[in-house]
Amino acid sequence: MALIVQKFGGTSVGTIERIQQVADKVKKFRENGDDIVVVVSAMSGETNRLIDLAKQASDGNPEPRELDMMVSTGEQVTIALLAMALINRGVPAVSYTGNQVRILTDSAFNKARILQIDDEKIRADLNAGRVVVVAGFQGVDEQGNITTLGRGGSDTTGVALAAALKADECQIYTDVDGVYTTDPRVVAQARRLEKITFEEMLEMASLGSKVLQIRSVEFAGKYNVPLRVLHSFQEGLGTLITLDDEESMEQPIISGIAFNRDEAKLTIRGVPDTPGVAFKILGPVSGANIEVDMIVQNVSHDNTTDFTFTVHRNDYQKALDVLKQTAEAIGAREVSGDTNIAKVSIVGVGMRSHAGVASRMFEALAKENINIQMISTSEIKISVVIEEKYLELAVRALHTAFELDAPARQGE
Amino acid sequence: MALIVQKFGGTSVGTIERIQQVADKVKKFRENGDDIVVVVSAMSGETNRLIDLAKQASDGNPEPRELDMMVSTGEQVTIALLAMALINRGVPAVSYTGNQVRILTDSAFNKARILQIDDEKIRADLNAGRVVVVAGFQGVDEQGNITTLGRGGSDTTGVALAAALKADECQIYTDVDGVYTTDPRVVAQARRLEKITFEEMLEMASLGSKVLQIRSVEFAGKYNVPLRVLHSFQEGLGTLITLDDEESMEQPIISGIAFNRDEAKLTIRGVPDTPGVAFKILGPVSGANIEVDMIVQNVSHDNTTDFTFTVHRNDYQKALDVLKQTAEAIGAREVSGDTNIAKVSIVGVGMRSHAGVASRMFEALAKENINIQMISTSEIKISVVIEEKYLELAVRALHTAFELDAPARQGE
Repeated sequence: MALIVQKFGGTSVGTIERIQQVADKVKKFRENGDDIVVVVSAMSGETNRLIDLAKQASDGNPEPRELDMMVSTGEQVTIALLAMALINRGVPAVSYTGNQVRILTDSAFNKARILQIDDEKIRADLNAGRVVVVAGFQGVDEQGNITTLGRGGSDTTGVALAAALKADECQIYTDVDGVYTTDPRVVAQARRLEKITFEEMLEMASLGSKVLQIRSVEFAGKYNVPLRVLHSFQEGLGTLITLDDEESMEQPIISGIAFNRDEAKLTIRGVPDTPGVAFKILGPVSGANIEVDMIVQNVSHDNTTDFTFTVHRNDYQKALDVLKQTAEAIGAREVSGDTNIAKVSIVGVGMRSHAGVASRMFEALAKENINIQMISTSEIKISVVIEEKYLELAVRALHTAFELDAPARQGE
Repeated sequence: MALIVQKFGGTSVGTIERIQQVADKVKKFRENGDDIVVVVSAMSGETNRLIDLAKQASDGNPEPRELDMMVSTGEQVTIALLAMALINRGVPAVSYTGNQVRILTDSAFNKARILQIDDEKIRADLNAGRVVVVAGFQGVDEQGNITTLGRGGSDTTGVALAAALKADECQIYTDVDGVYTTDPRVVAQARRLEKITFEEMLEMASLGSKVLQIRSVEFAGKYNVPLRVLHSFQEGLGTLITLDDEESMEQPIISGIAFNRDEAKLTIRGVPDTPGVAFKILGPVSGANIEVDMIVQNVSHDNTTDFTFTVHRNDYQKALDVLKQTAEAIGAREVSGDTNIAKVSIVGVGMRSHAGVASRMFEALAKENINIQMISTSEIKISVVIEEKYLELAVRALHTAFELDAPARQGE
């Protein structure tokens, strides 16, 4: 008998019919003898409806505490509906708000962080044979104010509850049936991964595979909560995200290929190579609230150096303006930029113990005549920036080169 | 500087525009130097929407605790919206759910009763210059479960808060500008009452003047909370409901005329007049969950008696069936009934100290050739049942006979 935390997002509980389907699914698990805690989001569309009302009432500027008071009702409705549907099926169930559980958070309204979870009430209910339905995305601060964890925070609630309860598994139900080696829309041979490590998932997620909220994966890794991504309404085992367990882990060199076409590249050339110059360049950029992703600086020649970084495309023009001012101030030669780029990354814990991964990547790209504009590496990831039009070609080439292609798609 | 509790119902906060108007009104009171606690209902239509969802999720049979979890979100949205609107106007404000206040109730979900109110938080906020916005209709039980007071319970929340805070006045904002001597749609000369006693208000309310929830008036009377009924969006002093204060009270003999055309009359004739016969007749009726209003039994003759009572018209057929069975069982002569009736009542504390009120009433009806079918009296009320078609005529005749007609409608 296992203790499982199951999290269903807004789309999975978006209509009464879907809530009924979730109830059927939970009932089945319960009948298998598992103890179940369910975490749900607001019905899809509901949070936006509430935020819209709040903006109307406040000339677009809702007070943060009152906004949390308001949007937290979204999940409160869903937990009650699911608990009713379960009870109606003869499954004893009880729903709890974040306050009732009690999920204690700090007082950072709209983006609170969980500090502590009381497991007493939930354990008592589980012992009494009840399914416990908990509102995701919300908590309560020391003063009793309702807080929310920010958008997508229901995943974090699920993982945090699983950690507090020492659950055997935290299952995140979504609209995909698992984590893939890359986007199946780009590579038809993309394959669902049976397992992936927390670290790999973090690199995959931050690079554009929007299956899970990054914060919840960090949390799961920190507390070693086995996380499984599954499809809400299809059968299947999904993808299990766990610690790097050498024994049981299928250990391919590369687990997946992530990509991102939302970035733009900026270069400042002929920068006098003096200590502190990186800060002089990036300080004003972050001062303008622009987030920087990749940063590359190569060795200098003639006492000057070139400095390149990428930002989100929406921030490109603002970043370019800031950089031009900086160039003038520090006496750099020129500033240039390009929005016509894409980033492709190979991710895998296997590259720690395998030599030659980078050269295999560069060889695959060279074979297709794809020019590499920037390279950046971490322990389990190699990212390159290429011209945008080569993106699909590059991803397919790498998918094949690292032997990720599915032999044949079963049942399709 | 007064402490005022203001309660706004669902229609008064039914749209964002109306919430803005309420915020303007509260701001004006605050600027006059009064301390304000505002109690609000769910936006009109919202509670029904939520109940409808709950029924869909549970095949029409929502579990009571979960239903309260669900519908309580209606007020939670409104308090946040109003607090935001106030803050946006530069008025410091904070909203609280029933749980946060804490309004402690029993655990009778869907129809809970208030046991105790903590005033500590609210007092601290008032002292800090904040307007406190409290969710009506809801509370929390000893175990931390969310409860609701049942339909219309927001009035009760307002009165209970006013009692706990020893407020100077509890103002109930509605869609009428006060309590009238009778329904102005029936009698054009109907007059707004400046004052009325709790007892009179109770008799008026239970007889069909649906301005205030009966329970809130009982509560206000018990704790001597001055209650004022006002129009949400019109200027005016409304009607003050207080204890019977002989000195300052305008003491007309009759304060108002209530009526009701929702009842039906049932008679059982030739009942053997033995002890316990009233119970034998009414026991099965209440056993069938039918509420009985007026009951009249006259002196017996030839050792048999006639027994007449009224029920809601919706229960007429059911009551008739029950009564026929009873008649057979106890050997009564016959059973008859009539749905074609109306009840008219005169209400006033003045009748305690004035003789001849009843005969003046009967005289006025006789003058109009209206036959009286039943009479029932209490200390401050005389009710008669007449044929329905005479209802308007009777109300107008009594309104004039007891000098309730407005001399002339000012400003109209």
